[in-house]
Amino acid sequence: HLSKLPNVGTTIFSVMSALANKHDAINMSQGFPNFKSDKNLIDLVSQAMCSGYNQYAPMPGNMELREAIAKKMDLLYNSTYNPEDEITITAGATQAIYTIISAFIKPKDEVIIFRPAYDCYEPAIEINGGKTISIQLTAPNYTIDWDEVESKFSSKTKMIIINTPQNPSGTVFSNANMLALQKLTQDSNCIVLSDEVYEHIIYDGLQHQSVCRFSNLKSRSFITASFGKTFHNTGWKVGYCCAPKTLMSEFRKVHQFNVFSVNSPMQKALADYLKEPSNYLNLSEFYQAKRDLFLSLIKHSRFKFKPAKGTYFQVLDFSKITQVGDVEFAKQLTVEYGLASIPLSVFNNNNRDDKVLRFCFAKTDETIKKAAAILNSI
Amino acid sequence: HLSKLPNVGTTIFSVMSALANKHDAINMSQGFPNFKSDKNLIDLVSQAMCSGYNQYAPMPGNMELREAIAKKMDLLYNSTYNPEDEITITAGATQAIYTIISAFIKPKDEVIIFRPAYDCYEPAIEINGGKTISIQLTAPNYTIDWDEVESKFSSKTKMIIINTPQNPSGTVFSNANMLALQKLTQDSNCIVLSDEVYEHIIYDGLQHQSVCRFSNLKSRSFITASFGKTFHNTGWKVGYCCAPKTLMSEFRKVHQFNVFSVNSPMQKALADYLKEPSNYLNLSEFYQAKRDLFLSLIKHSRFKFKPAKGTYFQVLDFSKITQVGDVEFAKQLTVEYGLASIPLSVFNNNNRDDKVLRFCFAKTDETIKKAAAILNSI
Ligand SMILES: CSCCC(=O)C(=O)O
Ligand SMILES: CSCCC(=O)C(=O)O
Repeated sequence: HLSKLPNVGTTIFSVMSALANKHDAINMSQGFPNFKSDKNLIDLVSQAMCSGYNQYAPMPGNMELREAIAKKMDLLYNSTYNPEDEITITAGATQAIYTIISAFIKPKDEVIIFRPAYDCYEPAIEINGGKTISIQLTAPNYTIDWDEVESKFSSKTKMIIINTPQNPSGTVFSNANMLALQKLTQDSNCIVLSDEVYEHIIYDGLQHQSVCRFSNLKSRSFITASFGKTFHNTGWKVGYCCAPKTLMSEFRKVHQFNVFSVNSPMQKALADYLKEPSNYLNLSEFYQAKRDLFLSLIKHSRFKFKPAKGTYFQVLDFSKITQVGDVEFAKQLTVEYGLASIPLSVFNNNNRDDKVLRFCFAKTDETIKKAAAILNSI
Repeated sequence: HLSKLPNVGTTIFSVMSALANKHDAINMSQGFPNFKSDKNLIDLVSQAMCSGYNQYAPMPGNMELREAIAKKMDLLYNSTYNPEDEITITAGATQAIYTIISAFIKPKDEVIIFRPAYDCYEPAIEINGGKTISIQLTAPNYTIDWDEVESKFSSKTKMIIINTPQNPSGTVFSNANMLALQKLTQDSNCIVLSDEVYEHIIYDGLQHQSVCRFSNLKSRSFITASFGKTFHNTGWKVGYCCAPKTLMSEFRKVHQFNVFSVNSPMQKALADYLKEPSNYLNLSEFYQAKRDLFLSLIKHSRFKFKPAKGTYFQVLDFSKITQVGDVEFAKQLTVEYGLASIPLSVFNNNNRDDKVLRFCFAKTDETIKKAAAILNSI
């Protein structure tokens, strides 16, 4: 059986988490919290199961949950999405992203992505026969040169994928970036996939630049979002996407035959929980305290950094310590020092190596302190 | 935005369930139980959430669950699958099926399916650019003419999809069918996708013919399976697939970028629950009693039938009652008589109409009695 997909390896997240487990290392590689989810939310799931939410949810998702999402989009971004045909619940944001790409990308279509990029975009593009066009951004500022983007943009560009707050760099799109994107795409048929899973984790008073705030972008855009990142339960695998009806109806054509529907009791519980905005409005503050703790503890270490502006990831530059490759250094750090991270080269074009590692600080203060002590010892 | 997928409509299950709800009809259309899941299993999920199973499960699935599945395959079919690299947990069997097809079907590849066929196969084939080759089976026996299959089988045949016990017809593959399939494929590169989601629901002492019982089939086959059908919780969306390592490694290349991983607390609960074989070994008996109740009550009605041999679906022939199309009659039955079913033509080649409707009898005895009374009144 010849492989349809010769170049796809195991995700770096599985590789590094396995290595962390094997060496009993502190795991700051894969992005997930090591503290508890809210007991109230857990109780809501138990209640939903006991009150009978155990059979197929509607294909586009539990209607109460879609309504709660619509209210949230209105509250935060002053943007209207019709829960009936513009919001769909997915088995995590990854499934939303894969499905969007499957629904629109045909062989030879081009898709522009900004690197370093989360690792599920390119395989999804390739599995569907599309061509990935990379714009490489470089440490430490990851600034976008829009002239370069324009030079790679053509009638073949079927989709542009953006991600703000950005995993892995921790940067965020500015208003100027959004306006540049709007200008670039305004006379085209290009679809924008805006991966906003870290929308509620943004620091220093910055505002999240959702595509839905820009009407000429919104009309061509999918937003993908995640409850796992917001409610500390990445293992529940419930996310969603929003898009204008004409785009969403294409999405659902694939969605219904990919997963059909999503976990019913958890949707019901999330619907009840999401209705209370205080359950997500304090998240930036919560994580900013963790970022500040982490960075204050390592400020005299030999790692260089610019504070993350969003996400629960901090990138650290190790070029003052060693010139070995970042993959090798990440492994060394795990095996010899007991601290796992993610090397950024795996997210780059041609594995460009800027000597940068990504650390997930969605961890208890105790874990953060132990990790900082290790970094200070290097 | 031109549609990549012009011919895919909304699934018949969503359409008929919505019509049933609108007219407050008894819903024997979409396949799901209307009785409670086991409280012990629900409690296991609550315990898993409370004891911290809330972050990403491993990409291929919770290891305890994979081990429990391997034990079950050994116990029931005397067949060995290595949990490490031959079993993967999925977000329902539908996601397994979609992912298998995405991993192997390239533009122009041919896939043979037997009709009437569950409605997710063909769209998944088409989305991936493949070509569906239909073998039409006909009511009431749905017998397979293997000479016809052979005549449509060629080097272009990348995959054959079988489904036993079969949804919607309620028929099962015989040992002779499996041997014919084995003979047909033995010198080819053809992959077999064996959809066995109703493996535990088979009647009259018949034995489930899993592909894994036939070593020359097993080596080229995926089995897809579902916990929702077995444990009365179709809305939890946890299933799995089994295949030899070389096939499974291709599967995981797509799986990891489609959903990455599956609901963690539910996997943990299902692992504990599956360890006890009595939790699934009595299922055939349980559903056979429901089938027998249903059929004994309608034996003097004007509907004709052969008892289902497996699945929780019974097809009824209405040709003595009316000659209107089956879609129209199914709607009439829902709107005017308050009983929803599924017309079989939607699963057929060119919508061939044998005047047959499918009724899901995974319902309380009370519901079955009410439905029978309606059918007797027609
Ligand atoms: C899907 S596992 C990866 C989790 C994550 O979002 C990350 O670590 O970047
Ligand atoms: C995915 S909804 C359909 C449920 C089902 O398996 C059926 O009714 O055939």
